Amino acid sequence: MRKDLIQVDDLARQDIERILERAESFAEVSGREIKKVPTLRGRTIVNLFYESSTRTSSSFELAAKRLSADVVNVKSTGSAVDKGESLKDTVQTLSAYDPAAIVIRSPHAGAAGLVARWSAAAVINAGDGKHEHPTQALLDVYTLRRRLGALEGVRIWIVGDVLHSRVARSGIQAFARMGCEVTVCGPPTLIPRGVEALGCNVSWSLDGIGEADVIYALRMQNERMTGSFVPSLREYAARYQIDGRRLRPNQLLMHPGPVNRGVELAGEVVDSPQALIVQQVESGVVVRMAVLYELLAGGGPAREASRFTQEDPTRVEPQPA
Amino acid sequence: MRKDLIQVDDLARQDIERILERAESFAEVSGREIKKVPTLRGRTIVNLFYESSTRTSSSFELAAKRLSADVVNVKSTGSAVDKGESLKDTVQTLSAYDPAAIVIRSPHAGAAGLVARWSAAAVINAGDGKHEHPTQALLDVYTLRRRLGALEGVRIWIVGDVLHSRVARSGIQAFARMGCEVTVCGPPTLIPRGVEALGCNVSWSLDGIGEADVIYALRMQNERMTGSFVPSLREYAARYQIDGRRLRPNQLLMHPGPVNRGVELAGEVVDSPQALIVQQVESGVVVRMAVLYELLAGGGPAREASRFTQEDPTRVEPQPA
Amino acid sequence: MRKDLIQVDDLARQDIERILERAESFAEVSGREIKKVPTLRGRTIVNLFYESSTRTSSSFELAAKRLSADVVNVKSTGSAVDKGESLKDTVQTLSAYDPAAIVIRSPHAGAAGLVARWSAAAVINAGDGKHEHPTQALLDVYTLRRRLGALEGVRIWIVGDVLHSRVARSGIQAFARMGCEVTVCGPPTLIPRGVEALGCNVSWSLDGIGEADVIYALRMQNERMTGSFVPSLREYAARYQIDGRRLRPNQLLMHPGPVNRGVELAGEVVDSPQALIVQQVESGVVVRMAVLYELLAGGGPAREASRFTQEDPTRVEPQPA
Repeated sequence: MRKDLIQVDDLARQDIERILERAESFAEVSGREIKKVPTLRGRTIVNLFYESSTRTSSSFELAAKRLSADVVNVKSTGSAVDKGESLKDTVQTLSAYDPAAIVIRSPHAGAAGLVARWSAAAVINAGDGKHEHPTQALLDVYTLRRRLGALEGVRIWIVGDVLHSRVARSGIQAFARMGCEVTVCGPPTLIPRGVEALGCNVSWSLDGIGEADVIYALRMQNERMTGSFVPSLREYAARYQIDGRRLRPNQLLMHPGPVNRGVELAGEVVDSPQALIVQQVESGVVVRMAVLYELLAGGGPAREASRFTQEDPTRVEPQPA
Repeated sequence: MRKDLIQVDDLARQDIERILERAESFAEVSGREIKKVPTLRGRTIVNLFYESSTRTSSSFELAAKRLSADVVNVKSTGSAVDKGESLKDTVQTLSAYDPAAIVIRSPHAGAAGLVARWSAAAVINAGDGKHEHPTQALLDVYTLRRRLGALEGVRIWIVGDVLHSRVARSGIQAFARMGCEVTVCGPPTLIPRGVEALGCNVSWSLDGIGEADVIYALRMQNERMTGSFVPSLREYAARYQIDGRRLRPNQLLMHPGPVNRGVELAGEVVDSPQALIVQQVESGVVVRMAVLYELLAGGGPAREASRFTQEDPTRVEPQPA
Repeated sequence: MRKDLIQVDDLARQDIERILERAESFAEVSGREIKKVPTLRGRTIVNLFYESSTRTSSSFELAAKRLSADVVNVKSTGSAVDKGESLKDTVQTLSAYDPAAIVIRSPHAGAAGLVARWSAAAVINAGDGKHEHPTQALLDVYTLRRRLGALEGVRIWIVGDVLHSRVARSGIQAFARMGCEVTVCGPPTLIPRGVEALGCNVSWSLDGIGEADVIYALRMQNERMTGSFVPSLREYAARYQIDGRRLRPNQLLMHPGPVNRGVELAGEVVDSPQALIVQQVESGVVVRMAVLYELLAGGGPAREASRFTQEDPTRVEPQPA
């Protein structure tokens, strides 16, 4: 493992495998009443979020707290960002606290990579513009492997606004690296040119989706649809919405959330037993615990000798007698 | 005790008594330098607040931290709520973290009850629209019983905008259940029809207030007074404000805060020794600790065998040697 | 030490010396992997911020957490402040939680002093309008003494908008008390009349700045420049900006952050090795730990007998076995 997790390309398949196994052990911890291990006690994690988020920020916060770290949340509102401070200056400020890790979400592609260059902390990309969202991809892989056992040869269709989706960019690569056959599907205006280079096929219609083992629907990001990419949401839904008619009984359904019911997904499929959407959220905490563990307490050869690697990460901190 | 605390009607008188006693023991803890017990160590409490609040949210946060729980605050701003996520989807997301409890405040009556149905966590209503605010009622009962010893036969006048007040709805029922004689008082436009069914008398003027042992003034909720319920605040104050002339020396004064000085209360009575307003805030932390304890670690027969009930909740977690 | 830290004048030189030494010992703790001591375990610190801030609020939060306190953040948005609650009522509410300390930032000069009068908690002024910001002054003194060894006779020029700067007001007094020779420099419209009484010289131009050992540039507070104090930022920069030409090789450079690059400082000097700006931020955490320690666990004769003074503040809380 490198110092940081900025994009899926930072991860060899064996890194992914190791994170998934670690996440399994944390899932066991999360099933206990005391969902906590002492691994990162006395270390500081900074959550620097320039975009609002429930899922991702609370998931990282909880992951850090369940590893016993101290968490400092910095949001774009109520911070020096309001005073026009540059990202670089903010990062230098926060780095002066000597945090073990900085988790960053930004509307600008490439922001997380810059932060990683500026800071000695382990930097985790929690979404940077249209670029990547690697922990989402890891939790998606984890969720699906938990359900299916193995991913080799599994056919996944990623449907929707691929062009603006960091979830798609990270997901295509992660699923492909694990041996899946990935197809992206959406209107031509929402499929980036040359996306095949990431390791996927392209389809402009749902016609062939019957072959998919898994349908991964993307959020239709209304707040980013400032251009005229689709004639109307109604027309988009008519051609690309996954509903009870299009989802076959043997297919699984995934979505990164939050769902626009009635747009990319019909309400009936969201609540169906084929949907793994709640499991994806559950996986978020344990996968992020595993990523923090790998970057800060385990992982690469450079840290192999660390005392942390001797420690059982699933050990519960004992209750005071 | 049920799984949740949504409304006063969820509580039998013996449940209230048990919570009050538990709160007494936590008051003893709060008087110590180390105001903390290990009861909820490693468990997660989610505070989901769709309305701004200092008192209630910080009080719940502190109660959870003094029970050693990990707290995740989710506010309506800076969250998926901004992206138009439905309450149901937000709750499903947060429930995926397997929290021990979700504390919810919402502008919509009935919201807490829905959350309780959707989540396996213990759900605590921290105010849902005009419906109820049961922990406020419990802390009011606790505060008054601490002062008076017993509540049987105590005469309480609740004065002001009863119509829009969840505090009043919960308070009437809780005081009545403890044996108080409750009268609500305010202009006819601000007294809901049929309120007597909750167990109170109605008065449209302050004429008879001399008989009260306790005057409980409600906040005049300017931000909700969109209709024309009163001719003007000035006229309202002239008829219903509690001032030094109307408050008799033998009467106690309560208010849920924050006070509009010069509207429902004159400044001089807010700061008088007859006012229990600061004590109400103090009670908030220990009563909420007691509610969390009852729902999560003690309480009903179903949990009687739990190892938590053997534990002394007031035991201080020992300092590491 | 008094109960509170409102202004530099609350500190005798020996108080400052003791805080600096304590901060040194916490700097040693901050260099460890587990950056935490148990000193304030089970005690509550309230951060009450009526102005947005990254640096100061996260620095206080981290200082409190590294002393093992429970921290409750109250920001002006999302709080009762929105409902028009007065500062006094807010403070009475928060005081009911029996916090060990209240850290307050306010846009109003004198606010922190009022809070100190209203609350039994130790109150720390984290900036009140144009008045003072004493912990900034302490961290500046700490940073400079760490670099230079002794401060007696060191010549410091404080350059910029002195009129609106609480940093300058506190800094002049603290540096002077430690034996520095302080000169303030800026356009006549931005130098308050009679500032010499604080213990400094005045210059309206940078002509003599070659004599300075340290240049302390102030933030040009655009958000406060509602009047017409300077003809334009461009003209201001031409006359008072510190750039690579004006900063001599033997001079040190300080700034409270966040920097307006291209206004009060040219980008090249911000990133030069003569700049102590990052060190100032680093110092913020350990100096605030020291202030909290002094006020809550050590300090004046009244507390000398406390069991806290027997405790080694740098002792690491042991890892559970």
